[in-house]
Amino acid sequence: MTTNVNPDLQNERNKATFDPIQLTYLLHNGPQQTRRKRYIQSLALSDRVKQNFRTWTELSREERYEESMKKCIYCAERVKELGLKDPVDIYIYNQMLTGHENSPFGLHNSMFTDVLTQQGTEEQKAKWLPLAKNYQILGTYAQTEMGHGTFVRGLETTATYDPKTQEFVLNSPTLTSIKYWPGALGKTSNHCIVIAQLYTHGRCHGLQPFIVPLRNLDNYQPLPGVEVGDIGLKFGYDAVDNGYLRLSNIRIPRENMLMRHSKVTEDGVFVKPKNDKLLYGGMVMIRSFITGDCGRGLSQACTIAIRYSSVRHQTEVTPGKGEEKILDYQTQQYKLFPALSTALAYLFAGNAIREMYLRVMADINKGALGELPQLHALSSGLKACSSYAANEMIETCRMACGGHGYSQASGFPKIYVNVTPACTYEGENTVLLLQTARYLMKCLNSSLQGEELPNLVSYLNKPTGGRTSTISDRLSLQSLVEAFEHRAARLIKECGSRIQTLTSRGMKPDVALNSTSVQLVKAATAHVECCVVKIFVNEVEREDINPQLKPVLQAVCRLYTVYLLLQNSGEFMQDGFVTGQQVEILNRKLLDLLNEIRPNAVAIVDGFDIPDAMLESALGRFDGQVYEALYQYARNSKLNKTEVSDAYYKHLKPFLDRQRQISTPSVVTSRL
Amino acid sequence: MTTNVNPDLQNERNKATFDPIQLTYLLHNGPQQTRRKRYIQSLALSDRVKQNFRTWTELSREERYEESMKKCIYCAERVKELGLKDPVDIYIYNQMLTGHENSPFGLHNSMFTDVLTQQGTEEQKAKWLPLAKNYQILGTYAQTEMGHGTFVRGLETTATYDPKTQEFVLNSPTLTSIKYWPGALGKTSNHCIVIAQLYTHGRCHGLQPFIVPLRNLDNYQPLPGVEVGDIGLKFGYDAVDNGYLRLSNIRIPRENMLMRHSKVTEDGVFVKPKNDKLLYGGMVMIRSFITGDCGRGLSQACTIAIRYSSVRHQTEVTPGKGEEKILDYQTQQYKLFPALSTALAYLFAGNAIREMYLRVMADINKGALGELPQLHALSSGLKACSSYAANEMIETCRMACGGHGYSQASGFPKIYVNVTPACTYEGENTVLLLQTARYLMKCLNSSLQGEELPNLVSYLNKPTGGRTSTISDRLSLQSLVEAFEHRAARLIKECGSRIQTLTSRGMKPDVALNSTSVQLVKAATAHVECCVVKIFVNEVEREDINPQLKPVLQAVCRLYTVYLLLQNSGEFMQDGFVTGQQVEILNRKLLDLLNEIRPNAVAIVDGFDIPDAMLESALGRFDGQVYEALYQYARNSKLNKTEVSDAYYKHLKPFLDRQRQISTPSVVTSRL
Repeated sequence: MTTNVNPDLQNERNKATFDPIQLTYLLHNGPQQTRRKRYIQSLALSDRVKQNFRTWTELSREERYEESMKKCIYCAERVKELGLKDPVDIYIYNQMLTGHENSPFGLHNSMFTDVLTQQGTEEQKAKWLPLAKNYQILGTYAQTEMGHGTFVRGLETTATYDPKTQEFVLNSPTLTSIKYWPGALGKTSNHCIVIAQLYTHGRCHGLQPFIVPLRNLDNYQPLPGVEVGDIGLKFGYDAVDNGYLRLSNIRIPRENMLMRHSKVTEDGVFVKPKNDKLLYGGMVMIRSFITGDCGRGLSQACTIAIRYSSVRHQTEVTPGKGEEKILDYQTQQYKLFPALSTALAYLFAGNAIREMYLRVMADINKGALGELPQLHALSSGLKACSSYAANEMIETCRMACGGHGYSQASGFPKIYVNVTPACTYEGENTVLLLQTARYLMKCLNSSLQGEELPNLVSYLNKPTGGRTSTISDRLSLQSLVEAFEHRAARLIKECGSRIQTLTSRGMKPDVALNSTSVQLVKAATAHVECCVVKIFVNEVEREDINPQLKPVLQAVCRLYTVYLLLQNSGEFMQDGFVTGQQVEILNRKLLDLLNEIRPNAVAIVDGFDIPDAMLESALGRFDGQVYEALYQYARNSKLNKTEVSDAYYKHLKPFLDRQRQISTPSVVTSRL
Repeated sequence: MTTNVNPDLQNERNKATFDPIQLTYLLHNGPQQTRRKRYIQSLALSDRVKQNFRTWTELSREERYEESMKKCIYCAERVKELGLKDPVDIYIYNQMLTGHENSPFGLHNSMFTDVLTQQGTEEQKAKWLPLAKNYQILGTYAQTEMGHGTFVRGLETTATYDPKTQEFVLNSPTLTSIKYWPGALGKTSNHCIVIAQLYTHGRCHGLQPFIVPLRNLDNYQPLPGVEVGDIGLKFGYDAVDNGYLRLSNIRIPRENMLMRHSKVTEDGVFVKPKNDKLLYGGMVMIRSFITGDCGRGLSQACTIAIRYSSVRHQTEVTPGKGEEKILDYQTQQYKLFPALSTALAYLFAGNAIREMYLRVMADINKGALGELPQLHALSSGLKACSSYAANEMIETCRMACGGHGYSQASGFPKIYVNVTPACTYEGENTVLLLQTARYLMKCLNSSLQGEELPNLVSYLNKPTGGRTSTISDRLSLQSLVEAFEHRAARLIKECGSRIQTLTSRGMKPDVALNSTSVQLVKAATAHVECCVVKIFVNEVEREDINPQLKPVLQAVCRLYTVYLLLQNSGEFMQDGFVTGQQVEILNRKLLDLLNEIRPNAVAIVDGFDIPDAMLESALGRFDGQVYEALYQYARNSKLNKTEVSDAYYKHLKPFLDRQRQISTPSVVTSRL
């Protein structure tokens, strides 16, 4: 295949007004870390073994699991050989070597060791962590049950303490208590942290984590009392053996309960934890990371769609002048540039929440827990909003590429099925938004009582009535931020009034909350979107941004904000804050912004700096040679290994022969 | 597996206020046709061979193709044996026997024979149709090329007439001219209708259809000059060998050009068709059918999600009172009931457009072409709006089922990947909406010139300025229809003014259209949604509807309309037609409607009358025994055929052994 760059794509690059590397630096914490990232990626890219990995699309599900097992073992050993220590380096290296696939070792290296670290005593950590880190045991984390997900307290698995033997006896007492979904549980793991209801002396003490061996380390057969297996095909995640687990009178020693927080003494006395807020930490961290992941998934989809749209031609706008690049159609820009701006918004938001997380955790270690509720509320809401947005817009990008988007050659389906579970796992999105909303209701109450509010919600203290928006032709970012604050404040206050009205009529508070939940979700979304807008605006107003890049990012930020406002314009107009005339202005400005971004669209996605080997897309190639790639992809289809398919010999030929016996196809045979 | 109905689901059925069979009758044209449908379905369901078909989710892509070939051959032979003649009967029978899978014979029995019928001369039909109908040849239809889709005129394949031999010589002159995507082209078909640019005596006469033999009928090898194959994995459609085709100097006799309309004489003279409007017919028909198909796809998703939501419990709203059915959460209703109402809206719209199609075609046969433009515009727009809505809401239903929605056991992924291509095939949605918009611009001009308008757009003649909506607490359907008419009229008129402003400033009309295309798409969408609302309202106001069913359908219709209005409230408020206070009322009414529909939600989806064997969903089972089904699904995973996976022996064991050599895992071995 040629290595020439398609002239259409080269032209796009030539007319950009900034150097994409400047955006790469901004997104990856400066030149030094960018160089490091590229160096680590090149280690993986140049790996000879990688070059022998089989093409993903050619494999059956079972082969994908096996191939992925091979890869993650190879990664684990290479990481050691290369001496990589920094988790970021390891993450980049693994990702580059394995592409989009999730790994059967993923949960061992994250949840399993994290929970050991966070919830084990020093003694337990000393015993188990070296075993885990050296892969002498391979573990996962089993919380979700067939009948219980987001409402964790509802879990049914039991761990009953037997003081006679000083053991816990674990059971899956019902069909619905069967563990279901944990990654790598089905076939890969030989140990598992099981979350179960602790019973001692006949009383339930709630959920605790227990280390449970699953398989005999010598022959990998399930241990007696353990029924464990894969849960079958999913929408994606073929490489991971999400599993089910049914426990029947499994006995584990008392020391296998992780006892850093709660404890059970030898004689079965339960000892409560001192402070349970610390248990939030891990959850907040994961949700914060998901925000960035969703931004990255969407930025991959944008890279594919925008590069393809600048080499794909369709329809003569002016007869005889040749077919236009589809990126020149306003409707195409209206699909792709808002997606592009959303990708950037959540990449920045992901960076911001991660920094906030690290700051708050440092404060907590100094004993200051004050910012935790605000962080928790924002991380929940950001996880929900970023995953919904990525989910929707990855599909918009795919469909903007016409039929070819539907081929696995495009790379889109794999991105989508990897990102879409983020709407559900680590807290279902609606439930998370309701958590954010409950925090906002508390803030509203504090505000009504004249208390000072945390900075992210301080807009609740501004008066809402009688004000109007200052949005004008100038399109100042400040006027847009103000509109988002106003909308959020109005929606939050309306929820507050409704709940008060309902309870004052005698409705129980819980029921009143449920009767307001649709509005609460809208209020929480408005709050999170307001935060994202502010983070984006702060980012593009930084003084240290490269001067060529700055106006480009500001246009993208304006587009993000104006598009989001127009998508929800009714919410901004309902109380007259934004007028019909202002919406009219924004509609016009939106089209101007599409024009303004157009010349830099390819440069922006180049700035995401995603190697071809990670995109795995015929349409998104850096060189734009999409048709050669599509043709090669087709030729490599497994069904083409033989000119005539097996199905012909087995089924079609006998059928056609039967049909021919009915009458002689004289006309046809004469032709051949 | 038990056949008891889950009591949760039985309770739902007990409290319904109407008999679901009444809805089934309404959707399937009365009791007689419902009985016929059920009879045909039962023929397929009770078929012994069907019971031996392999489980879809267990198969690799190649096995799926093969299994599907087996099935469609079996169907073809059984249809003959059973003496089924009515296309509706055959459709139902095939669909029931093969589930969601698309068939390798699908295009042979539709496009290939349809195009022969519509574009062949009597002589050509006499020759080719019997061959096709008796499966003595197996054909498909190849239009799309790698570089050319929706803009058909851009196709590059050539057919050059050679008067010396009286043959056409077909070629794929460029990489981008390779045919790509036609279903069943890769491995199944031995003939193909190829759309190519006709050249004779050195001049191009545009696109014509040619019958091209592809494979030797004796050994199924591709004929000399034919390079043909499968295009590889897609998002779905595993059963179909979508193919590519590269032609090199393929000679076919002059008689293989379908000449009902255009002709080429023996000496190479091109003869133009008399009337090219008739060529629209097939396209309009297919787009009309897609509308109903999208409604059916979405109704399947709603059936699964609503049944599951009434047996799944989560979270105690009132502590100690047990976990609630998730269908009792307002947020869940807010996801599922609008989807349910949209499914019904497009089922009715699909029925209405099909009837309109049949009426207009009958008129055309009498020489009256007047309604064709209106039908064409509506069918294009309906296809786009129905596929977008189904696409979005199937995923909403899936995600409303939490993690289990992501399992193939849920049935959702298969529905989604089958429906989503409808956004792209048979005309890309945005391009279709722009076609509808161009029709609306013509109507607007007629209106400005005082001409009478076709009934569906007659609202353009009403004045828009200075009027306000009559929406009130009564929520009359008429006031809602009026609001949809007003919004559509305003958006259409604004497009008209903008185009006029731009052209009056010297912009060329084509460029002005492209510079207005975002608004044109919105205007077209508003028109189509207005039509759908009117169709729905007409349907629920019919006098012959069962009196128990009628108020239920009216509530669903109100919900559809109110939800759609609120989703786009800014467009209704922008000129002050709908006020903030009215939106406030609608927001309140929406919550009331969710409550009103709640008791009948399960009965409505029961009324869709979709057999379990078609849903293929552990979550959507009629008996509600979802956990047993999920457990069985997991146990049947191919990875569970052995307790210990192949990947363990090949990769994991050697790795773990290497790790153990590093240090002895004394702690672990002592445990086992």
